[in-house]
Amino acid sequence: MTEATMTLDGPLGKDELDLIHRYWKAANFLSVGQIYLLDNPLLRQPLTRDHIKPRLLGHWGTTPGLNFIYAHLNRVIRARDANVIYICGPGHGGPGMVANTYLEGSYSEIYPDVAQDADGLAKLVRQFSFPGGIPSHASADTPGSIHEGGELGYALVHAYGAAFDNPSLVVACVIGDGEAETGPLAASWHSNKFLSPVHDGAVLPILHLNGYKIANPTVLGRMSDAELEQLFSGFGYEPFFVEGSDPEPMHQAMAATLDTAFGRIAAIQAEARAAGHAHARPRWPMIILRSPKGWTGPKEVDGKKVEGFWRAHQVPIANVRDNAGHLALLDAWLRSYEPDTLFDEKGRLMPELAALAPSGNRRMGANPHANGGLLKRELKLPDFHDYAVAVPSPGATTAEATRVMGSFLRDVMAMSAETRNFRIMGPDETASNRLDAVFETTDRVWMEGIESYDDHLSQDGRVMEVLSEHLCQGWLEGYLLTGRHGFFSCYEAFIHIIDSMFNQHAKWLKVSRDLAWRRPIASLNYLLTSHVWRQDHNGFSHQDPGFVDLVANKKADIVRIYLPPDANTLLWTTDHVLRTYDRINVIVAGKQPAPQWLTMDEAVLHCEAGIGIWTFAGNEDDHGEPDVVMACAGDVPTLETLAAVDILRKALPQLKVRVVNVVDLMTLQAKEQHPHGLTEREFESLFTRDKPVIFAYHGYPYLIHRLTYRRTNHQRLHVRGFVEEGTTTTPFDMTVMNGLDRYHLAMSAIERVPGLAVSAAAVMQKLRDKLIEHHRYVRAHGEDMPEIRDWVWPGRG
Amino acid sequence: MTEATMTLDGPLGKDELDLIHRYWKAANFLSVGQIYLLDNPLLRQPLTRDHIKPRLLGHWGTTPGLNFIYAHLNRVIRARDANVIYICGPGHGGPGMVANTYLEGSYSEIYPDVAQDADGLAKLVRQFSFPGGIPSHASADTPGSIHEGGELGYALVHAYGAAFDNPSLVVACVIGDGEAETGPLAASWHSNKFLSPVHDGAVLPILHLNGYKIANPTVLGRMSDAELEQLFSGFGYEPFFVEGSDPEPMHQAMAATLDTAFGRIAAIQAEARAAGHAHARPRWPMIILRSPKGWTGPKEVDGKKVEGFWRAHQVPIANVRDNAGHLALLDAWLRSYEPDTLFDEKGRLMPELAALAPSGNRRMGANPHANGGLLKRELKLPDFHDYAVAVPSPGATTAEATRVMGSFLRDVMAMSAETRNFRIMGPDETASNRLDAVFETTDRVWMEGIESYDDHLSQDGRVMEVLSEHLCQGWLEGYLLTGRHGFFSCYEAFIHIIDSMFNQHAKWLKVSRDLAWRRPIASLNYLLTSHVWRQDHNGFSHQDPGFVDLVANKKADIVRIYLPPDANTLLWTTDHVLRTYDRINVIVAGKQPAPQWLTMDEAVLHCEAGIGIWTFAGNEDDHGEPDVVMACAGDVPTLETLAAVDILRKALPQLKVRVVNVVDLMTLQAKEQHPHGLTEREFESLFTRDKPVIFAYHGYPYLIHRLTYRRTNHQRLHVRGFVEEGTTTTPFDMTVMNGLDRYHLAMSAIERVPGLAVSAAAVMQKLRDKLIEHHRYVRAHGEDMPEIRDWVWPGRG
Repeated sequence: MTEATMTLDGPLGKDELDLIHRYWKAANFLSVGQIYLLDNPLLRQPLTRDHIKPRLLGHWGTTPGLNFIYAHLNRVIRARDANVIYICGPGHGGPGMVANTYLEGSYSEIYPDVAQDADGLAKLVRQFSFPGGIPSHASADTPGSIHEGGELGYALVHAYGAAFDNPSLVVACVIGDGEAETGPLAASWHSNKFLSPVHDGAVLPILHLNGYKIANPTVLGRMSDAELEQLFSGFGYEPFFVEGSDPEPMHQAMAATLDTAFGRIAAIQAEARAAGHAHARPRWPMIILRSPKGWTGPKEVDGKKVEGFWRAHQVPIANVRDNAGHLALLDAWLRSYEPDTLFDEKGRLMPELAALAPSGNRRMGANPHANGGLLKRELKLPDFHDYAVAVPSPGATTAEATRVMGSFLRDVMAMSAETRNFRIMGPDETASNRLDAVFETTDRVWMEGIESYDDHLSQDGRVMEVLSEHLCQGWLEGYLLTGRHGFFSCYEAFIHIIDSMFNQHAKWLKVSRDLAWRRPIASLNYLLTSHVWRQDHNGFSHQDPGFVDLVANKKADIVRIYLPPDANTLLWTTDHVLRTYDRINVIVAGKQPAPQWLTMDEAVLHCEAGIGIWTFAGNEDDHGEPDVVMACAGDVPTLETLAAVDILRKALPQLKVRVVNVVDLMTLQAKEQHPHGLTEREFESLFTRDKPVIFAYHGYPYLIHRLTYRRTNHQRLHVRGFVEEGTTTTPFDMTVMNGLDRYHLAMSAIERVPGLAVSAAAVMQKLRDKLIEHHRYVRAHGEDMPEIRDWVWPGRG
Repeated sequence: MTEATMTLDGPLGKDELDLIHRYWKAANFLSVGQIYLLDNPLLRQPLTRDHIKPRLLGHWGTTPGLNFIYAHLNRVIRARDANVIYICGPGHGGPGMVANTYLEGSYSEIYPDVAQDADGLAKLVRQFSFPGGIPSHASADTPGSIHEGGELGYALVHAYGAAFDNPSLVVACVIGDGEAETGPLAASWHSNKFLSPVHDGAVLPILHLNGYKIANPTVLGRMSDAELEQLFSGFGYEPFFVEGSDPEPMHQAMAATLDTAFGRIAAIQAEARAAGHAHARPRWPMIILRSPKGWTGPKEVDGKKVEGFWRAHQVPIANVRDNAGHLALLDAWLRSYEPDTLFDEKGRLMPELAALAPSGNRRMGANPHANGGLLKRELKLPDFHDYAVAVPSPGATTAEATRVMGSFLRDVMAMSAETRNFRIMGPDETASNRLDAVFETTDRVWMEGIESYDDHLSQDGRVMEVLSEHLCQGWLEGYLLTGRHGFFSCYEAFIHIIDSMFNQHAKWLKVSRDLAWRRPIASLNYLLTSHVWRQDHNGFSHQDPGFVDLVANKKADIVRIYLPPDANTLLWTTDHVLRTYDRINVIVAGKQPAPQWLTMDEAVLHCEAGIGIWTFAGNEDDHGEPDVVMACAGDVPTLETLAAVDILRKALPQLKVRVVNVVDLMTLQAKEQHPHGLTEREFESLFTRDKPVIFAYHGYPYLIHRLTYRRTNHQRLHVRGFVEEGTTTTPFDMTVMNGLDRYHLAMSAIERVPGLAVSAAAVMQKLRDKLIEHHRYVRAHGEDMPEIRDWVWPGRG
């Protein structure tokens, strides 16, 4: 128990205290109403079973605390004209967020049908968790929300993402004590090591300990204040405790603590901004609020403890329709808020209470930062043609694709230096992924001490590196949701760490795209590099190309997957994805020196189509069809396919080969399944109607089958890809282990062209011998055979 | 700087100090040798380019610190006859783990070819990161390892998993400061809230701060000692600092600190074990070791800082073959360890050094806990028939499948009360997932304070609940890898949180299955419940059935996916998976009251086949084939399929319908792709050769296509499943939103049976009308139509 909760005096005068308490009661009343009521929202008729929803869905336990915080944030916003958004970690406290945005008026502005009158109130309570209504969480439907919170763990990292480069913003972030047990949340506390008091806004974490999750006490809830004080001091915060259950001292304590916290934030920022930098990482304030779960709800139900216990988590009184005692208990509970003192005859919030909410865009439900598309400015982009790699003939040039991309990103970074609306995130891999040209124009942001020998660290950098894919992803989501742009580069295998965050963001986008009032936000762009085929040095744990399989399950409108085979196609793709909105774009591209295939002009044509025949590589006649189609998607598969074609053309010059390269994986799907999908006619014009197709694919081969199963004669597609074989070995050996190498590809073609296997038996034997020779060579020499390392497309020179 | 590092005296006498220092030098020498050398391991010839590997792959930076810790743990093991395993968080420090197990002899016992002599040494250095040799990380190939560490974040949670129910074991867990930035690791510190000093062993976390990751300083590395002290005190530990770079005081400090830490552990355990319980959660010791990255390596290379900086991360001196200066630098570096003072003429470690290692199973490379299959005891299981739900006729009984399973698990728990070798993990969902019968025999383990009104919490419970899927997964992995058994129940959508951990465990199993010396461990078993179709109350964020898609990408030998449609099939499946080893089994099953289809005897037959025709549901003749096959996998799809069949049979009695139910999803794959796959003949005997198949599938429909694309006439398969439509609504409305409901299924059948669409036009119209009626009803009443809720299979009664 802290000092603040022991004393009855505080910053609130008696009237103000009474008003804020009644405001809280109004929010609690509407929250309970949403969970239970079909109608009769003001209880102006006697409550009957017909007023009760047949299915009671919702979460009460966290809600009164969320409402308490909302009311007090309203006060501090008004007192300071503060610019605040509210991130509700316990997003299942949706009734509270809806109640508060309704009370402040922002809800009815967006949903005029749910007006601030008796009729609107009836709609408000009925729609909650009701078919055709609104979901139970603080989803995209909820004004002021950038965080649904259904999956726990990401509240604080979203808050920081929102605060970066938003110097006037304070992000109040409520973290439930359940959420505080998760890994991503635990790591998020360290985000203060990356927040500049000069360029960024502030995050005010409010750890809301009500002590319980669904059926258990919580770890942090049962820790002592002394341990919590140490823990959060250790994380670099100045913790303030607000603890208790008696409303009057709790209001005083919360008001006093928020005054102190906002004062601290202002002082920290003023000092740093005056100096132009922070002389040390600031010790930002945070609040630890201990209040009872289900506060103000029923103490007991059927003789069992409810308030202050986990039984308050969801619907504290069940079976209300058919249990008269329960109905009476609900009636008493609802009436304990004295609704007639809160709403006037017409069902409007009493004017003295309505006056407590901020006005206009200062209302947290109307703050444009929580509808980032409103604030989004298009990113200034240089002309990507200027970064083109010269490709005098296919394969004639060697380049590192991501290094070329890095030059482009450097200038995107430079052109956004003033607007500060573009960041690059990565788990310590920006340089490793060869994007280090960006350090010519910005640094890695770093609020810890900086040594003389450190490399491109500064307090105002816009590259964010931390060894946590969760933080990279969450920061970027928060940054995009508040109207900015960004890029996340990651080792391909470890992007699976954020699978579930990706899922949730895709779901958010799917819902928000159907809400006209939510303006489009910039797409979430991934560069997956250090990919499966070139993790030969790190071994099996680093070899996993399966993220795109997850991506392909999401709604077609939301997701795109690009596999540019060289630097110029990667440039086009990078430029393209930075111009899109409300999508998730995944680019898979290598960082190693590799042959370049297309001039910039060719790359543009190829990428705009997303798929195409590489005529330079094939040897078909002008008329008729090839004997075999060699298809490829991904840089290494493209290289191996061209090498296989080289073998086939030399060994079997009569064989007519076509090469099809796929940049945009979604072209393979049927047109009716994905907007980028080829029509059947287009598909056949590329792949023929019935010729064998040997498809060398970057990832798990099943994905190609799943995308093409509807295509004519699908069974002629023979796909090779990663089949979960790997270790520390040579790059070419990785392809051999998985049967994606030039020899296997050439053998597959020979096997599948009718009649060829017999006539080409000698060629087949030579290919098998090559595989044996390779096997022996790498084990003897530890590197690939010279003929592999030195192979160039014969068109060269 | 702590006291310990300031003083030169300490527990080590001069001779002992000298010996341990030389032992460390030997490990460092062999580590550098592995990274660089093809041959000439003892430098008994002048070092030339031909002795250098053509590709230099490995990580030096962390290795000397790992070696330092290993040498000191050896000392403390010998001094106390301690039972210790070493979890190497920075698993890319593989050269160090290999060097140490080689020096102690455990390596050569497992790999006799790499003997403790000059020839063996040559093989040792050559094989590292070399094709056909060993990988660069502390993978399954490495003796003493249960943790590859390629993906960072799981060292500490694995350590705790290993310690549970292993009262004599001390798990020394080295956590790199890069890893310490990850979310899962950050949450893992709280595992001390679940570790009993009576029943469990101890975990000794050694936070190894060398200050840098790949190209950046680390967050924890740059934090002050004062903040670190607060942070880890707040997490509940007693931190001890060992800091410096001068070997002599560092050895003294490390030895003194390990003595203190092991003393603390012994005292904590002795006190609690004498009392039979802990009077409060113990404050376990931990060590914070600050030492230079690349310690003892080159200070500078080409004028750039290396030792004590991130440039030491991987291979500090590059391009050694072609740069004479670099070759000389490497030569000097290697010789700085004075190999001739470490190894005798025959290449054997000097006897006085060899004597420093523990012997037999006390050697950390030979400790059987790190090869858990050696210690695994079969789980005692009750007869699952005893828990069978009586099913007098199909659909005649209603039961909650997971509740029935809970009774079985209760008795598994009871039967393992003495052996304490079975645990259930879940993110606060054991009761919510209706497995709460287990609380009749055990509790949730909880080391925090326990209140009188708390429900089934105790210090010795074997149900582990924490709101972190990462911790549940990691604890279970550590528990299984050390030879025990377990079960992880999770909300289906949120299992994606551990996608990447699943990946890494699957990779570990794949590699370890090929190592004869690694004995099989118990399978990792998931129950995914609260699944997509019954998360109607929590909404879209809780609706995602995609985990099995990820699972299906893994090696066929490793993974199994079961979708039991009712309680008896779930019982069989539960019993079955608990008997398997070296696998990952995923069970998807609902928890809601639902109709029961099969008697126990029928369930056994059905599950053993994995797929089968439900003759009770179809109406085919004894001869000939049906007109349509209605296939289903999953409880809700099975229910909707049977309801659709009911509609079809009543409306179109002449239509011959077959119902096929799939329990084991892998039966759908071709036999050559998966050991459980049906032959083509078996497949056709179930699905016919060419009749339309309407397949109602629990998850994303693409998975069924990807599993069956090779099947005859695959294009006749029409799959319905989750197509990413969801919100808070009614259960049946969820199926309608995704077209998986009985009406859509019946319509699909009618559309696809040749000629039927015209003759059944009236039926089609009626089905369309039903969908409209449903839509109106749920929006008016907030629950499903009575005819939906009350539907029963007509065979009933």
